[in-house]
Amino acid sequence: MMNSRMLFYFQRFSMSGSRHSIAVAAEVTISNWAAPGSTPSDVADVVLPNTAKINSTGLEKLVDDLLLRCWSDWRWFTHRVPLSSSTMLPGVGVFGTGSTARVLVPLLKAEGFEVHALWGRSEEEACCLAKELGIPFHTSRSDDVLLHQDVDLVCIYIPPSMTRQIAVKALGIGKNVVCEKAATAVDSFKMVTAARYYPQLLSIMGNTLRFLPAFVAMRQLLVEGYVGELQVCDVRVYGPSLLDQSYGWTCEELMGGGGLHTVGSAIIDLLSYLSGTRAHRVHGLLRTFVQQNGLIRGIRRVTSDDFCFFQMLMGGTGSSSVCCTVTLNFNMPGSFVHEVMVVGSTGRLIARGTELYGQRNGSKSEELLVGDNGWVGPEVKEMPLPLLQGLSSMVKALRQSFQAKEERRCWARGPVATAPTFEDGLYVQTVVEAVKRSSSSGEWECVEIMSHEPDPNQNLCEALKRNKN
Amino acid sequence: MMNSRMLFYFQRFSMSGSRHSIAVAAEVTISNWAAPGSTPSDVADVVLPNTAKINSTGLEKLVDDLLLRCWSDWRWFTHRVPLSSSTMLPGVGVFGTGSTARVLVPLLKAEGFEVHALWGRSEEEACCLAKELGIPFHTSRSDDVLLHQDVDLVCIYIPPSMTRQIAVKALGIGKNVVCEKAATAVDSFKMVTAARYYPQLLSIMGNTLRFLPAFVAMRQLLVEGYVGELQVCDVRVYGPSLLDQSYGWTCEELMGGGGLHTVGSAIIDLLSYLSGTRAHRVHGLLRTFVQQNGLIRGIRRVTSDDFCFFQMLMGGTGSSSVCCTVTLNFNMPGSFVHEVMVVGSTGRLIARGTELYGQRNGSKSEELLVGDNGWVGPEVKEMPLPLLQGLSSMVKALRQSFQAKEERRCWARGPVATAPTFEDGLYVQTVVEAVKRSSSSGEWECVEIMSHEPDPNQNLCEALKRNKN
Repeated sequence: MMNSRMLFYFQRFSMSGSRHSIAVAAEVTISNWAAPGSTPSDVADVVLPNTAKINSTGLEKLVDDLLLRCWSDWRWFTHRVPLSSSTMLPGVGVFGTGSTARVLVPLLKAEGFEVHALWGRSEEEACCLAKELGIPFHTSRSDDVLLHQDVDLVCIYIPPSMTRQIAVKALGIGKNVVCEKAATAVDSFKMVTAARYYPQLLSIMGNTLRFLPAFVAMRQLLVEGYVGELQVCDVRVYGPSLLDQSYGWTCEELMGGGGLHTVGSAIIDLLSYLSGTRAHRVHGLLRTFVQQNGLIRGIRRVTSDDFCFFQMLMGGTGSSSVCCTVTLNFNMPGSFVHEVMVVGSTGRLIARGTELYGQRNGSKSEELLVGDNGWVGPEVKEMPLPLLQGLSSMVKALRQSFQAKEERRCWARGPVATAPTFEDGLYVQTVVEAVKRSSSSGEWECVEIMSHEPDPNQNLCEALKRNKN
Repeated sequence: MMNSRMLFYFQRFSMSGSRHSIAVAAEVTISNWAAPGSTPSDVADVVLPNTAKINSTGLEKLVDDLLLRCWSDWRWFTHRVPLSSSTMLPGVGVFGTGSTARVLVPLLKAEGFEVHALWGRSEEEACCLAKELGIPFHTSRSDDVLLHQDVDLVCIYIPPSMTRQIAVKALGIGKNVVCEKAATAVDSFKMVTAARYYPQLLSIMGNTLRFLPAFVAMRQLLVEGYVGELQVCDVRVYGPSLLDQSYGWTCEELMGGGGLHTVGSAIIDLLSYLSGTRAHRVHGLLRTFVQQNGLIRGIRRVTSDDFCFFQMLMGGTGSSSVCCTVTLNFNMPGSFVHEVMVVGSTGRLIARGTELYGQRNGSKSEELLVGDNGWVGPEVKEMPLPLLQGLSSMVKALRQSFQAKEERRCWARGPVATAPTFEDGLYVQTVVEAVKRSSSSGEWECVEIMSHEPDPNQNLCEALKRNKN
């Protein structure tokens, strides 16, 4: 025992019937371990006897005894013996074998994280990438990663339709989670519920743009009043097709494919981060200009958007609201434009790629505020530089967050305080769905964040009620 | 008489009552001058006796005789003795003392046009600018320019609310007209009616972007299939405030002020020129972020937009339509961005300022297609380079058009064939008003071109009808 603080994770098995496995994670330290009436969910600190020399097996026995005595409906799930500060970073399990996962693993390793396990949709995919990236364990069964004893942080970069399931389960098992967006607002809501239930676990959405130095600086300058009163945000992202080589979720709007869902959601999140407000009304139009190509043909047809523009009114209502316009076009092979401009009453800031420029109303020309810092990381063809550098910055922030605490699973909020939460993820997904609705209806749509999970039997219930009357 | 073709202009005075002055202009040449039964409106060529040596007074007498004999309800209005080819260009009268007029006069002179008369809203303004530009005659009474015997071409660059009156009158008097947009669709419709009535007179809208070499080339490349099937047009114009130094029409939405009306209309026109189609549905949002400033204050308030974005669906309906997005922001002092991008199935073209770039889908980088040709004309602070160079190109086209014919008033369609007609002006104004409606309603609005002038007494008539029943 090198440190006095420890982490224990408990899983609760309900006593009432078949519905089980509502889990709670609790951080346990020696300060009030002896309080036998307390339950893990309300224990912040638990006093341990002076067991500085206790070994792992002894600790297990001690905890088991305690559980038997007073927390009989709780089961100790896993534990971690704290380590020296040089190895304080959590072990990582990565879900996904796509381009992001491929980039993420080297970035994690560069920051000192150990990647212990990789999940892929097929054994072959997982095996192949694990070998390539030197990951000791691979699998196509999600539980094998989630239950892996060396995995404390789970990074989920898989198709949107599968994200919710893994993310919620990972939190339930007591793992910290960084994950990509879900496919629907309902899924996002379920993730929010899980994250609320485990407030001490890290649960952040993987929108890395918030971590890009240019946007960190932009936000800081906005707070400091560089542009005065914010009036307009104007965003353009142009690039080549987002479709995979073969037919898959990227082609399917309902599976979370398309420019709006894939790229637009990151912009929606970014704009709320930058402006400090949220959209209340949106309007948009989606198009699928390329419905078939050399690889996707026959009866198959792309339904996800390759062109989208949308407007958001953010912050105050009426004329005081901020007008945001976003244009996404993924019919432009051979180019990549990523431009975010914010215009206010006294100046403007423009992020072009990874660089930030500014111009105050008085001055005659733009000034370079954040330069291209000469990216020395890997060059990745499929991943635009802002996302790549943002991902790198996010991994750095994760390292700082975990390093600030002495236990592996333990993290400090500071370095990741600006990361998008699951609540942000729900907001983003809600805006995405409102834009899609607007594209169908042709009207401005309100952004109304879900406050409770829709009852899947609602229609049935209403039918029954009607029959009753 | 150095040339055998001459131009005469006639004005018809109705015999029936007080409504008078429906005017017709006819081009008259010596080929069939002798046909006494013909009326000017159906005369293309009128045979003159061999009057090669006839002087101006003699010619007047001859025409008077002819009118007395067979066209008794027509009055010869004015005439022009043809000149040698070096002086074949029409004399010009300019309406307006603003920045465009100030730029236009030197450009006209550089091309060999003589500017004979200048109209300003006040004697002082007119006098001041006439002196500055070396124009021999100035006035604040519009008829003095319109009836000026040396004026054959009238260039109207005045506040939109006054344009219709001058333009229609100028055509009525038999002058060729180049003019800026009107304030309303009803006004535009009246101008169309006048232009239709005088098809032999030149009547073009002063949207000079169509003449800019970059856009001429862009259109040509679009026709040649550089971008394949056109999908998206994306336009951004950013710049400093459009407001005048003092309170005036630029501040008033109803007077034709604002970014949409002033700049957006040129873009609407340009996109229909480039795409060869018209908008059928539009959606937009207008904002006035700066409602008061150091010069406009107290009870006065700006109502014209300083920010506007709008979308147009052009060409085919449904998914085959071209999606256009236009963002106009005039809260950006110290900058000028003028970017027009068209994206198609096989490539794209981008006009940045006066330069044209292109990229086909196969290639790795943009190619410069039309470079900045090193503008040697006047640098004008208030006027962005694309408009300035476009204006210069338009004046060149006018010179070619008039030079191609031997009479001063006579012009060839070729060089100005792509110029926006008054019909185009009506279309543009209709789109502008639809965007404004959309900004109020929040909905997509249809673009329905006026086909007959709305009866100002319609409400009254309907009320009478109702009373009758």
